This record gives sequence, C-alpha cells and structure tokens, in this order.
Amino acid sequence: MANDTIRFFGLGLGPGNPDYMTVRARKVLETADRLAHFCKRGRRGNGRTIADAIVGADPEREIALAYPVTTEIPADHPDYAAALNPFYEEAAARLLAEIEAGRTVAVLCEGDPFFYGSFMHLWWRLKDKVPTEVVPAVSGMSGAWTRAGAPITWGDDVLTVVPGTLPEMELTRQLSGTDAAVVMKLGRNLPKVRAALATAGLLERAIYVERATMAQEKIIPLHELPEVFDAPYFSLIIVPGQGRRV
Amino acid sequence: MANDTIRFFGLGLGPGNPDYMTVRARKVLETADRLAHFCKRGRRGNGRTIADAIVGADPEREIALAYPVTTEIPADHPDYAAALNPFYEEAAARLLAEIEAGRTVAVLCEGDPFFYGSFMHLWWRLKDKVPTEVVPAVSGMSGAWTRAGAPITWGDDVLTVVPGTLPEMELTRQLSGTDAAVVMKLGRNLPKVRAALATAGLLERAIYVERATMAQEKIIPLHELPEVFDAPYFSLIIVPGQGRRV
Repeated sequence: MANDTIRFFGLGLGPGNPDYMTVRARKVLETADRLAHFCKRGRRGNGRTIADAIVGADPEREIALAYPVTTEIPADHPDYAAALNPFYEEAAARLLAEIEAGRTVAVLCEGDPFFYGSFMHLWWRLKDKVPTEVVPAVSGMSGAWTRAGAPITWGDDVLTVVPGTLPEMELTRQLSGTDAAVVMKLGRNLPKVRAALATAGLLERAIYVERATMAQEKIIPLHELPEVFDAPYFSLIIVPGQGRRV
Repeated sequence: MANDTIRFFGLGLGPGNPDYMTVRARKVLETADRLAHFCKRGRRGNGRTIADAIVGADPEREIALAYPVTTEIPADHPDYAAALNPFYEEAAARLLAEIEAGRTVAVLCEGDPFFYGSFMHLWWRLKDKVPTEVVPAVSGMSGAWTRAGAPITWGDDVLTVVPGTLPEMELTRQLSGTDAAVVMKLGRNLPKVRAALATAGLLERAIYVERATMAQEKIIPLHELPEVFDAPYFSLIIVPGQGRRV
C-alpha cells in the first residue's frame, strides 16, 4: 500500500470534516507533487475545499480540472457525452504528462473515489499506463447517517442507493421494495424524489442532509422541509431501516 | 466533534488496514480509558484485531463482550432474541457503570458503526443516558471494491446492499432489479447467494472478497471459486455496476 512507485492516486477525502480523513489520505495529501481537483469553471471544487484544513493555497502544486458542463445538459442527452468525453480525455492526458515528467499526481475526491466518483473516468483511462493507488474513504452517505444519529441498516435490512437523477417511476419502484434507502445527487431533483418517496410510503422516515460533518451542516426531517427548497447537488436523503433490534 | 464531555464512543475502525482508520478514530483509540469489543467466547473480536497495530495488549483497559450465541441459532428464531436481548442489556449496564465511574468508553467497531454494526444495539440503550459520539469509518464494502479495482457505481447506477441471510427468493428479487450489488454476511449463506446471483444473471460479474485491505486478503471472481468453499461470515460479494462512462 505504501508502494513508493505509485505515481497516480485517487485520493478519497471523506465527507468533509478533516478529522474524518484516513491516515493514508493525510499522508498522500502532504506528499504528492500535484493535487488535481474537479470544479465548475471559475470555482473551487468540493474536493479541494475539504483539503483546505491540511494544505494551503499553492498554485504551483494545484491542477484545476474545470468541467465544460455540469448540470446544464441532462446526463442522458447525447450532447452530455459529446462534451464530457473530450474533457476527460484532455484531463487524463494532462495528468499523464505530469506523471511522465516524474511527478506524483493525486486527484482529490470528496467521499469515496469508487462510489459515483468523477475520478473513475480518469482512472479507467490511466490505470493500465501508470502505477495507481485508490485510497478509500468514509462516504458522504456515512457522514450523513452518522451525523443524523440514524443507523441506516439493522439486522437483515436491505439498503438501496439511488441517484435522484432517475425517472420518477424508477425511483418509486426502487424505493418501494427496500427497507432502507439513500438518495444521492439530489439538487433540483428534490421535488421528483419527494414525490417518489411519498408514493413509496417513506416520506415520514426520510431525512434531508446537506454538508454533513461540515460547518454549514443541515439535517432536517424531509416532511419539515419547505415545499420550495434549493438543495445543492451534493445534498442527499436518507431513509433509515427499521430492522431487528434485540 | 472534539467535545471533551463525550464519555461513550462508537468507534469505527474501517475495513482492516490501520492506514485506513480516520484521524479521529486514531485519536480516540489512543485516549479512551476503556476499549470494549464484541467477540465469540474465548476469541478476540475483529474490531480488537484491527486495533492491534495501534494499541498493544492492555488487560486493564480492555472489555471483551462475548456473544452468548453467534450463528448457532438463526437470527429470525425466537431463541435468538431471547439469548441476545439479556446479553446487550448486561453489556450496556457494564459500560454504563464504567462511564458513571468517570471513565470514557470506546466500542471498537470493524467497518462503519451505523452500517449493520452490533454497536447499534448498545447505542440505542445508552444514547439518551450519556454524551455519545459515533465515529464513521471506511466501510468493509468500500475496502472490498477499492482493493478489487472495481468501481461499484457509475453515472445513474442503483446499488443494492443485501444481507446473505435473506431467503433465496428475496435475494433473487433484490438482485434482479439492480445495477450494482453488495452481498454482506456471507459465511455459510454462500451456496444460497451463489444460486440467487445465477438466477439474477449476475454470476459472471460477481467478485468474492475476504479480508479486504488486510494481510490475508482474498479477491476471486465468483465463477472461479470452488463449489465447496468455507467463506467466513465477514466475507462479501460485490457486483460492480456498468453505468455511464464518458
């Protein structure tokens, strides 16, 4: 794991609080030659912000990878892949050039890199070209259920994790057949997700969580959330299971 | 989070490798007056073993909570609750006595405490009696998909987590309607789980993982696993999603 020949890291930084980074993540954060992060144009990414507590601004060391689009085009639209594919190709080439120049590169990932992470799109382009290490992390959803004081699965509970981007009927189907649930990628999908949770009979148990473990954390029972509410993309909803308690 | 009045900790230690403990977990591990762990009679628990790299044997500091039964009685049998309920009651009383004597108590948890953790049965008995902190952790399943080099969810993939303890028909139903899956609590449920995965058409994509991130780690494509195989209870199966890659 502490292999010195590793040149490329997928660096999971956890849900946000720097105390919840792993020992390994701290080490790589302090030692990698280059720190890359995804962001919207002209803004810092969440991954970079989480690292603030450990690494100060260092323009020499930082590589910002600015998405050409984020939520302007639906992800199932052909234009989405048409815009994102060359972006990931160029980003991978840029990081590869750094690595071939003898530097180590860490991609800063909020949450766990292999769980809905943008990093995965770089990983599959580079994993066979350079020695790679992925550092797992506390997931955003784990930060959420921990801070909400809401154990997510008991006994034989089934947990279903759904992206809020799915069509309402599919959300309803998935949420109806499970004991516990997490809805990721909330943002402007919130009204649709709320409707699906209501149809599935889960509205009363659902909890809205935003920026769990961070200073601006919000934890609100979903049925108390205003009808019109501006949820950021990286908010989520948890529905704790009710399984066997002995 | 660093509240000094906290007396009771649910201490998530992660998937096994001590480098994957959080900074917060290391701190609590080093400072708590008492370290409690669940175990089978006469054996050390996995939680305690993970802590070995950080804390040596210290009989004064350790509290072993030995289950009266583990897998001898099926969890849905009335005798199971009849045996486990007094055990958890006594364990909670024992830890409460330590806390009331002025000591801090940390319960060592493998993986993430609020994700199928035995700790939850102590937590709901004590959370309203003493100031409590739960320290989230890298989950065992995250350690598994990271070490298997198998991103679990891409794009709009749905992830379903099922305990292998469920009946085969229910396992098949859950596994048939999802993009990605994790089967927990494998052990002697392996043949039943294998049959359910085959019916759901997921056998080819399934990966068996045992002791991920630890020295004795085993990662084997499920279709290459011998027909007769002794899987420990804390092994699992992952089925990576195949969602949108751009």
